[in-house]
Amino acid sequence: MDDDTGALPSRTDFSSWYNEILWRAEIMDVRYPVKGVYVWYPFGFGIRKRTYGLLRELLDRDHEETLFPLLIPENEFMKEAEHIKGFEDEVYWVTHGGLTPLDVKLALRPTSETAIYPMYALWVRSHADLPLKYYQVVNTFRYETKHTRPLIRLREITSFKEAHTVHATWEEAAAQVEDAVARYCEFYDRLGIPVLVSKRPSWDKFPGADYTIAVDCVMPDGRTLQIGTVHHLGDHFSKTFSITYEDRDGEQKLAFQTCYGISERSIAALISLHGDDRGLVLPPEVAPTQVVVVPIIVGKRGEEVLAAARHLTETLAGAGIRVRLDDRDLRPGAKYYHWEMRGVPVRLELGPRDLDAGVATAVLRTGGKSAVPLDGVADGVRGLLETAMATLRETAAEHLAGQVRTAGSIDELAKALEGGVAVVNWCGEKACADRVEEDTGGAVLGVEVRSALVTTAEGTCVACGRKGTTALIGRSY
Amino acid sequence: MDDDTGALPSRTDFSSWYNEILWRAEIMDVRYPVKGVYVWYPFGFGIRKRTYGLLRELLDRDHEETLFPLLIPENEFMKEAEHIKGFEDEVYWVTHGGLTPLDVKLALRPTSETAIYPMYALWVRSHADLPLKYYQVVNTFRYETKHTRPLIRLREITSFKEAHTVHATWEEAAAQVEDAVARYCEFYDRLGIPVLVSKRPSWDKFPGADYTIAVDCVMPDGRTLQIGTVHHLGDHFSKTFSITYEDRDGEQKLAFQTCYGISERSIAALISLHGDDRGLVLPPEVAPTQVVVVPIIVGKRGEEVLAAARHLTETLAGAGIRVRLDDRDLRPGAKYYHWEMRGVPVRLELGPRDLDAGVATAVLRTGGKSAVPLDGVADGVRGLLETAMATLRETAAEHLAGQVRTAGSIDELAKALEGGVAVVNWCGEKACADRVEEDTGGAVLGVEVRSALVTTAEGTCVACGRKGTTALIGRSY
Repeated sequence: MDDDTGALPSRTDFSSWYNEILWRAEIMDVRYPVKGVYVWYPFGFGIRKRTYGLLRELLDRDHEETLFPLLIPENEFMKEAEHIKGFEDEVYWVTHGGLTPLDVKLALRPTSETAIYPMYALWVRSHADLPLKYYQVVNTFRYETKHTRPLIRLREITSFKEAHTVHATWEEAAAQVEDAVARYCEFYDRLGIPVLVSKRPSWDKFPGADYTIAVDCVMPDGRTLQIGTVHHLGDHFSKTFSITYEDRDGEQKLAFQTCYGISERSIAALISLHGDDRGLVLPPEVAPTQVVVVPIIVGKRGEEVLAAARHLTETLAGAGIRVRLDDRDLRPGAKYYHWEMRGVPVRLELGPRDLDAGVATAVLRTGGKSAVPLDGVADGVRGLLETAMATLRETAAEHLAGQVRTAGSIDELAKALEGGVAVVNWCGEKACADRVEEDTGGAVLGVEVRSALVTTAEGTCVACGRKGTTALIGRSY
Repeated sequence: MDDDTGALPSRTDFSSWYNEILWRAEIMDVRYPVKGVYVWYPFGFGIRKRTYGLLRELLDRDHEETLFPLLIPENEFMKEAEHIKGFEDEVYWVTHGGLTPLDVKLALRPTSETAIYPMYALWVRSHADLPLKYYQVVNTFRYETKHTRPLIRLREITSFKEAHTVHATWEEAAAQVEDAVARYCEFYDRLGIPVLVSKRPSWDKFPGADYTIAVDCVMPDGRTLQIGTVHHLGDHFSKTFSITYEDRDGEQKLAFQTCYGISERSIAALISLHGDDRGLVLPPEVAPTQVVVVPIIVGKRGEEVLAAARHLTETLAGAGIRVRLDDRDLRPGAKYYHWEMRGVPVRLELGPRDLDAGVATAVLRTGGKSAVPLDGVADGVRGLLETAMATLRETAAEHLAGQVRTAGSIDELAKALEGGVAVVNWCGEKACADRVEEDTGGAVLGVEVRSALVTTAEGTCVACGRKGTTALIGRSY
């Protein structure tokens, strides 16, 4: 908390902006001496804690939280052929305990299907045990060989929320997929993050899944970020791990499964979509500090102002608002810089003139200045926090609307992908998806797009001219 | 949740009781296919979540939560010679990413000094940054070669709360040690767990520490369990990792450090000290379910009773009490068994006669039956929860009082250690501690014992007869 007032790069230079805001706003320290793993600063962790608190709140309605081991024995890990093929290049292996080589190598979970499902085989006995809906929040590991980036592409994903459900029928599992998608949309809506939901092409689904529904957001530079996936696993894993149940007629049947996950990419989206050239802009619900009180001490009435600022702070804290008094010996400008960088939604300035008028001067991080009466100030501040959230949600939605463009040809598509995503028609063939990617650098994100900005219709494939349907194309992180 | 009513072994056969209650009360599943790592059932995780919530609440008063990586590069890990010597046989090593051997081997943290302190060297600049008090809750790993046991001796410790503080002077660090000990005592008091605090002998301190203060409890079989440690690290690590600060005079000085931790052994203590032959007995504060409502449906008034039970459940839930209605189609006895096993503090039975009298029949898990008026029932139940907590705390304290025995000779000591711990006089020499261990199987836990049950005084060493001071001897887990 020193008097640093260095400027961020403009968010239009997104990559530089992102790297710099991570340390200026004290989200993550990238100087840890292992590539691709990072340290959460307490402030960043405070955002993470509240964001995952919200995610837990949404899941706890009908899921239960649990915790499975990190270490997966090689033999279990290798059981599902398609699944392991999807991960074999990326798995960290523990080979030694102390100086002793292990009999069985242990994988650090890249995801937990092969840790959880042998236990589900023991836990699921009868139709009465179903549906079973558990989740955990854990660290997972991927030996990424691509360029790593904090919160986005990591070797230790510190905050993977993964849910794993078991159902009696394929249809019930499909309904759970829809339920999970809806829950994820609610989560991102609460964070003011507009998303594009689509069904991934078959070659891009989760290894071992029947199909994958993905949640993407569009970053300020137009590249998409996958911030949630929901997989229908069919009975692939239940076959491999013998997850069966006795149905009402006493018959043993294979169960059907789903799994779905959200990682700290949710925090990357939160930072990137709402931030601006002055720093973070945080939704009040996850802001570690919702209100900062800055006493304006000029002239003789310093003590009086400070006492009133303390009283104001206590009043707001008593009303359950996360408030801080900044009474440091710094000029107000330095304080404004500090708290704007950290995305505090509401700043309350209190000076002699405010006191005389019985108000505080409120400045919203999302823009706008107003006088809030000190009488009933908690209600006034709650109103401002709601206004801030509404503004933040609208701004992000408008930005996305400008980033989703329709393209009827490869040339239009290439142009649309400069700073955005494209809605095209596509025949569904991999060859055409490959051609699109070669010519434009954009990949097929998915079909059956769920967004008010995209209407699905028949049309001519942008690559081959044959009959196609609406697909979303993007350059992704 | 089936109609299982199998009996637990008696808690007097503690080892069998412990193993069995873990699955009967759905705390942990021990069938995971890697030795020494276990799976948290959702119910057990619910206890863990609330217990760690309490620990966080106590620390958050003046600490901040953060999160550091699991993987520690070999070169950092090897820097502090004394420290690594304490852990080298126990460290899991990651040697491969995919099929590629890693350039630098990566240790799975057994504890995080060597992950955190290189970052502290970057973070600590000036006296104004001190004291720095951060903590994290993480999974840590030890390649235990001794007999492993769920929650007690693990290869993956899933829930290690470790705090790491930095101070300007040795004295300030020493004061922080006292503060941490007090905080840990408060934590265990809130859980109704009576503890014995002592200063570990020098050969048993944390590798790299000036001294270690430990928190032990005494398990039902008389063996002690270390459930918290607080270490004064002096400037050992700050020398190794160059953690320095500029003091008020502009001079660079070495910082002084402490660290202190609590693991899921806290849950082992919680289960073991309060449980009885019928199952868990949980402190209301951490019980996933505080109250269960069991409708007694006999005769014609079934619907009326059920409606009233629903209303009662809603009333209590509305008052912020964690309540469940058990309206399963089982006989009441099976329900009682189920919830007693899971340690639910208060059971409310509601039958036609209760309804007529305007009461529910309350049965406390800690013993006692009473009628609670339905009018103002939330207050009545809150009172019962307080009574339950007081009883549980007293019972555990009385039990410990019976387990702490004074011994004046090796023979008396051996006898005292049957089911308890011994208070003796000891000269401080390792040779005498070794003789005590050889002859009795008891080790010196520590001196300067802080407990109302133990008074420190001069006396004759139990082993050599020379001058000694009060020491605590126990057989430990």
